Amino acid sequence: MLERVPTGIAGLDELIEGGFPINTVNLVSAPTGGGKTIFAIEYIYNGVRNYGDPGVFITIEEGYESIRRAMNAFGKDTRRYEEDGKLFILDMTELRKEMGIYESDKDGLTFDALKDALTGILKYTKAKRFALDSLVGIGLSYESPTRLREEIFRFSCFLREMNLTSLLTTESVEGTPGITRYGIEQFISDSLIVLGLEEMNGELVRTIRVRKMRFTGHDRGKHPFLITSGGIEISPHEKIFNP
Amino acid sequence: MLERVPTGIAGLDELIEGGFPINTVNLVSAPTGGGKTIFAIEYIYNGVRNYGDPGVFITIEEGYESIRRAMNAFGKDTRRYEEDGKLFILDMTELRKEMGIYESDKDGLTFDALKDALTGILKYTKAKRFALDSLVGIGLSYESPTRLREEIFRFSCFLREMNLTSLLTTESVEGTPGITRYGIEQFISDSLIVLGLEEMNGELVRTIRVRKMRFTGHDRGKHPFLITSGGIEISPHEKIFNP
Amino acid sequence: MLERVPTGIAGLDELIEGGFPINTVNLVSAPTGGGKTIFAIEYIYNGVRNYGDPGVFITIEEGYESIRRAMNAFGKDTRRYEEDGKLFILDMTELRKEMGIYESDKDGLTFDALKDALTGILKYTKAKRFALDSLVGIGLSYESPTRLREEIFRFSCFLREMNLTSLLTTESVEGTPGITRYGIEQFISDSLIVLGLEEMNGELVRTIRVRKMRFTGHDRGKHPFLITSGGIEISPHEKIFNP
Amino acid sequence: MLERVPTGIAGLDELIEGGFPINTVNLVSAPTGGGKTIFAIEYIYNGVRNYGDPGVFITIEEGYESIRRAMNAFGKDTRRYEEDGKLFILDMTELRKEMGIYESDKDGLTFDALKDALTGILKYTKAKRFALDSLVGIGLSYESPTRLREEIFRFSCFLREMNLTSLLTTESVEGTPGITRYGIEQFISDSLIVLGLEEMNGELVRTIRVRKMRFTGHDRGKHPFLITSGGIEISPHEKIFNP
Amino acid sequence: MLERVPTGIAGLDELIEGGFPINTVNLVSAPTGGGKTIFAIEYIYNGVRNYGDPGVFITIEEGYESIRRAMNAFGKDTRRYEEDGKLFILDMTELRKEMGIYESDKDGLTFDALKDALTGILKYTKAKRFALDSLVGIGLSYESPTRLREEIFRFSCFLREMNLTSLLTTESVEGTPGITRYGIEQFISDSLIVLGLEEMNGELVRTIRVRKMRFTGHDRGKHPFLITSGGIEISPHEKIFNP
Amino acid sequence: MLERVPTGIAGLDELIEGGFPINTVNLVSAPTGGGKTIFAIEYIYNGVRNYGDPGVFITIEEGYESIRRAMNAFGKDTRRYEEDGKLFILDMTELRKEMGIYESDKDGLTFDALKDALTGILKYTKAKRFALDSLVGIGLSYESPTRLREEIFRFSCFLREMNLTSLLTTESVEGTPGITRYGIEQFISDSLIVLGLEEMNGELVRTIRVRKMRFTGHDRGKHPFLITSGGIEISPHEKIFNP
Repeated sequence: MLERVPTGIAGLDELIEGGFPINTVNLVSAPTGGGKTIFAIEYIYNGVRNYGDPGVFITIEEGYESIRRAMNAFGKDTRRYEEDGKLFILDMTELRKEMGIYESDKDGLTFDALKDALTGILKYTKAKRFALDSLVGIGLSYESPTRLREEIFRFSCFLREMNLTSLLTTESVEGTPGITRYGIEQFISDSLIVLGLEEMNGELVRTIRVRKMRFTGHDRGKHPFLITSGGIEISPHEKIFNP
Repeated sequence: MLERVPTGIAGLDELIEGGFPINTVNLVSAPTGGGKTIFAIEYIYNGVRNYGDPGVFITIEEGYESIRRAMNAFGKDTRRYEEDGKLFILDMTELRKEMGIYESDKDGLTFDALKDALTGILKYTKAKRFALDSLVGIGLSYESPTRLREEIFRFSCFLREMNLTSLLTTESVEGTPGITRYGIEQFISDSLIVLGLEEMNGELVRTIRVRKMRFTGHDRGKHPFLITSGGIEISPHEKIFNP
Repeated sequence: MLERVPTGIAGLDELIEGGFPINTVNLVSAPTGGGKTIFAIEYIYNGVRNYGDPGVFITIEEGYESIRRAMNAFGKDTRRYEEDGKLFILDMTELRKEMGIYESDKDGLTFDALKDALTGILKYTKAKRFALDSLVGIGLSYESPTRLREEIFRFSCFLREMNLTSLLTTESVEGTPGITRYGIEQFISDSLIVLGLEEMNGELVRTIRVRKMRFTGHDRGKHPFLITSGGIEISPHEKIFNP
Repeated sequence: MLERVPTGIAGLDELIEGGFPINTVNLVSAPTGGGKTIFAIEYIYNGVRNYGDPGVFITIEEGYESIRRAMNAFGKDTRRYEEDGKLFILDMTELRKEMGIYESDKDGLTFDALKDALTGILKYTKAKRFALDSLVGIGLSYESPTRLREEIFRFSCFLREMNLTSLLTTESVEGTPGITRYGIEQFISDSLIVLGLEEMNGELVRTIRVRKMRFTGHDRGKHPFLITSGGIEISPHEKIFNP
Repeated sequence: MLERVPTGIAGLDELIEGGFPINTVNLVSAPTGGGKTIFAIEYIYNGVRNYGDPGVFITIEEGYESIRRAMNAFGKDTRRYEEDGKLFILDMTELRKEMGIYESDKDGLTFDALKDALTGILKYTKAKRFALDSLVGIGLSYESPTRLREEIFRFSCFLREMNLTSLLTTESVEGTPGITRYGIEQFISDSLIVLGLEEMNGELVRTIRVRKMRFTGHDRGKHPFLITSGGIEISPHEKIFNP
Repeated sequence: MLERVPTGIAGLDELIEGGFPINTVNLVSAPTGGGKTIFAIEYIYNGVRNYGDPGVFITIEEGYESIRRAMNAFGKDTRRYEEDGKLFILDMTELRKEMGIYESDKDGLTFDALKDALTGILKYTKAKRFALDSLVGIGLSYESPTRLREEIFRFSCFLREMNLTSLLTTESVEGTPGITRYGIEQFISDSLIVLGLEEMNGELVRTIRVRKMRFTGHDRGKHPFLITSGGIEISPHEKIFNP
């Protein structure tokens, strides 16, 4: 039996036999406004609060204040866990602004910078969960999808070696048929969860589907979900049928 | 509770829980003739007139006279507010013509030029609202979407630091499936409002949909709107159902 | 109230509240055989004959003789107005052949050449209308759509400064979904009129739709039109419904 | 009234008000096996036999023998007219093989070579008709569609100056939505006739449609045609309706 | 009357008025698993056995043993004809491995190599039929479709000069709309036969359609075929109707 | 009669007349989460356990531990066979991390490295089966599909010479119409089996279809399959009909 790391996201764990298999690298893709940041926030926050798992959240899209604001907006009190040394919100947006992307005279923000930062944090805490929002912010530093694929491959190996159960977010681009921005992220990760915004009767409905999960069975239906004042609420027993 | 900056656009604020969350960067995309300039004009003008918020409007597509003409055509008397130092219409088309786009011997009009101009204005006024029409005029100066993405990312950070609640416009290109010209703008901004022109019974109908709004719930339907002699009029209780 | 420049094209002016707003740059796109040259011809010819507006027609696709032949084929007697110094048909095809397109040792036919020619003509006449057939012939001289966009932007500013009410033609390419060849022309111009050739019951039917018109309301339906021996005849009260 | 050059192709002239307008450049596009070579053959052969118009046929796809074989297969006796100096079949395939396409040390077969050859022939004959099969064989020598467009533009001007009524063939590529290989040929020519092979009830049916004809009205329906032992037979009163 | 070279493939010759016209270059395209190798094998083998035509089969995809194995699997005894000097199976896979594709220090396997090999064989035999499986293996050596097109053009001229009636195979790529890999092969050849694998009621059904045949009429329906233990069996009187 | 190598995968062998023809190179493509790794695992494991065929499994996507974990999760006890020298799981992920992809100062992980490793193993064991998971991990090292095609071609020749019956896996990319990542792998291999994940009534259903198998007949229907705790279970008598 595989050990599981429950996400604590309402309705999700029962779709994936209890949680992410331990030590895996999990991917969530979503379009603009699809809910990937709150998804990542909940994964880390629930880990600390409900399961006592120390967690690291690295943001390279929004700053620390914005993430804190979002956590608080969903009724999640972060201060206490940060002070206890259980929750680490690492804001790499400043570094990103400074390092920029590949240019002749700059290194750009790379996975190596991420590894360095993470290694530093892991020295004085025993984090079990890790979230990165988002892969794309780093992917920009690489000139080709091929090169990026190799880097994600190595970074994923690193995360497993660090004994982390990880969640990475990526974008799906409206108007393109792929399910991830680069069309490669999903082949490296151990799982893929696809969030969508689909038009139904004139409304955009939020949907979630587990597309892949290595080593384990999983539900393969498409389910609606809501983002309420308490966060994500998945309806695991409701399904969406596309015509 | 998040503080809100009402747009004052007829019918819009009730779709987004009262207005844009303060200090956010908001994006509006529209096809040719879709109404993005009038949208930006109203956001700034309503701010000055109805809420007493000083505002800056930077145009890099049409000159000062054209914007003034448009404001007046919609019954908006700008002179008074300009004289009061509450409304700033900054015409950067001349600069754009002069600087051009990236060429070996020229710098092109960049976000850095915009920051400089904005910093100057903010020294002697306390603008709370900012509108830029359009992102694309500046985006042309960057060679790759990747590079542009980083620049928009930095510019957005700058706008938040300046304590502005901002509105940026971008284009959607007819005949391409994406919802923004570069396919990246929407991932950087805190919200995305999509304006459309859709064929219904042989007519082109104007539509609006809130596609994304960070930190807050929002209506997810697609609504019709009109541009009348008074400006934009959204019907928040009417919905459009695509077959 | 905006001053209007009537096109005099049968059925069109009532769709656009009387004509083009004065001093604007207007764009017409059409596929092969869609009628863009006759459209431009009528705009200039009607101006001279019906409204006494001196006009300049620059052709870079067909030579002077071909345009004359076409005007005469539609019963338009140009000689008289040319002799009166009211109508200028400027044939730049020779220049185009000579200058060619961008090559290491050549300048190509550019908007700068057009400006020079136009400035020369405007010294000894007071043209109010201007037509260029077509943008594409010049666009070929530019290496990228981005560069071209900037040039059209500048050329449009120039035309407004010259107090001309202008009509530019561009192509839509069969088999591609866009509505203009470069996907950018329509964002620079003040209006966009789309001519089409649509299959209905085995026939190709000519259609016209006003897609955009800055500063003013306009009809948004798609209307059929004919090209008869007298020229363009739009049916403003008939509409075409695509299934 | 425009002077006409009848094609003599069974059923075609009544679709185009009697024939091609004199001194025009006409384009025929077809997919593989669509009938463009026989179309060009008939145009030249009918001219010589039925209307006494001397004609030049340049082939750069198939050799002289192959064209002769095709003409004879359709019951057209060429020898007599060739001996009379009325019909010129110019085989440039050898030159094409020799000159090749653009390479650092070679010039490639270009429109300039074609002009030279044509000028030579026109010195000792008074050809009124000209056919080139096909544009694509020459188009290969040009690196970009833009460059090619300029060359076709110039070549078309040359043909008109030579007082020829010309027919050029081009390819439409199966599986691509465009109606010509390069998407530009049709904008230069004075007319465009599209040949198709469409699946109807499991059969490939041959179709013809006049898509564009400058200076003149024309039928706009899609008609079936056959290639029989006598050549092309169009049914001008039958139409094809696509669902 | 054109002299014919019967293929001897069950059901095919009656679709093409008795066989390929003599001295022509014929093309067969098929997707993965579509049957192009067995098609080429039968053309050569039937020629030797049924019509006494010496034949050359060049493989650059599979080795000699693999082709022999395939021939034997379909009950075709090759040894006898090879010993009689009537059948030549030329295995150029070794040469291909050795020469590779275009690289700075290598020539790659080119049509010139093929011509050399073929010229050698033709010195001591009087082959009438030639098959190449496949064009693509050679096409890889050329940097652009344009360059390749010229080479195929020249190679086809060479084959006709050698008085061969030839069959070349090419690939159609699943998931792309074209009917040949490069979109150019079919314009050079004298005929095109398209093999397909189409889904009907959950099964993949093999289909064949003659798409083009110069100098001659041909059936234009789409017919099912089987590959049985005896080889290809076409049903010329059955047709497939796509909805 | 061709000698067969049974896959031992439940339900598969009866679709392909008993197994893969001996000494062939077989390809399996699947989308993310489609089951290609477990497919390859079963092929090798069943060979050892049920048929006594020594086998080599090379992974370049997941490490040795991950493959072992997966094998054990499906109730396959590998240790015994590994100790007996019958089963070789070769983990090349470390080498991949070290060698990286093509960069000016690195060689990248190439097929040559694979050949070296395989040649080494084959010296002291008599493996009959070989599986590589996946081709893509190596394909990344090549700059163009053309170059890659040649390398796969050569590697396939090598595998046949080594008397191995091989299984290679590749990816199909969601949102693109092709059936393999590079669109070329399937033309080199002797067979192609396509695994899918298709939406039916809101569920993702696993499907399998044999698309190609050289030298032999094969079922051409699309069948559902499950991945249970025991591994892959195909329903050879059930078919899926796409509308």
